[in-house]
Amino acid sequence: MMIKNQTIEKFLDSVASKTPTPGGGAVAAVTGAMAASLVEMVCNLTIGKKNYPKVQDEMIQIAERASDLSVKLLDLADRDSEAFEKVMEARKIGDKNKTKAALLTAIEIPEKTAEYSENVRELAEIVGKIGNTNAHSDAMSAEQLAFAAIQSAQENIEINKKAIQALAILGKSK
Amino acid sequence: MMIKNQTIEKFLDSVASKTPTPGGGAVAAVTGAMAASLVEMVCNLTIGKKNYPKVQDEMIQIAERASDLSVKLLDLADRDSEAFEKVMEARKIGDKNKTKAALLTAIEIPEKTAEYSENVRELAEIVGKIGNTNAHSDAMSAEQLAFAAIQSAQENIEINKKAIQALAILGKSK
Repeated sequence: MMIKNQTIEKFLDSVASKTPTPGGGAVAAVTGAMAASLVEMVCNLTIGKKNYPKVQDEMIQIAERASDLSVKLLDLADRDSEAFEKVMEARKIGDKNKTKAALLTAIEIPEKTAEYSENVRELAEIVGKIGNTNAHSDAMSAEQLAFAAIQSAQENIEINKKAIQALAILGKSK
Repeated sequence: MMIKNQTIEKFLDSVASKTPTPGGGAVAAVTGAMAASLVEMVCNLTIGKKNYPKVQDEMIQIAERASDLSVKLLDLADRDSEAFEKVMEARKIGDKNKTKAALLTAIEIPEKTAEYSENVRELAEIVGKIGNTNAHSDAMSAEQLAFAAIQSAQENIEINKKAIQALAILGKSK
């Protein structure tokens, strides 16, 4: 079942279980999606408010972008798990080329997660400055969560890069 | 409906909507819960593995603590929204004493979120050092997400403390 259709409790259970997926990469993407939704909320709490006449158009645009990023990040949560499952399958059958190809995909997904989360972080910074001041703490939360999502995604990029290096070293020692 | 029983997609939609709850406080608590579940996963990927004989008992204990923290943090996500809704109700009827009391509760909840998330962060640090090295990136992700949950919770503590100060100033100017 796709992550977006799972209840939060069920998702947490599947993270906690002894299977490696969903793991840090999927959780990073979900966190980035939550940060994007917080940005959208700050926009929605600013749109139509008479104290913020000059930023109405910008808020409508940011809300749309944040909504789009939230959907994309949630999709990446599933793709991250799928990519790592392919790595495990290739390792199981001991196919070095397939393992390398699978690892490369397992790097591309968190790279996208980091990129989109950085977009979310930038939007959070903007809405924190010009959005409804009553929702300032929400914008700050979004910024911090997006930053953690970027860092978590980078951990996944690093561990898979190391796995590719290890594969190359194994190849040479043959 | 309790947050734990909502699908991830539905939860994100309710965050993004133009109502202030669930907001940064609830999202912080859910992030802390996800970090706790990641810690539990690292333990579960270490328990029963012959390469880690010396840490088996500790991993079993940490898994139990992480599981407990995940449940508690998820519960705080609901309580955070409830607490802020009480603040809004009290403000609506213009009752200063009720508003202050509601704000004090709205501070206590993120204080708990920050405390439990700090516990999660400490456990993540431990499992990152002594747990299954294949899950090292998951432990690092857990640490970063728990840290962001602490920071987000602190944003909520701060904004509500400022609201209490503003209330006191209003009281004096009467």
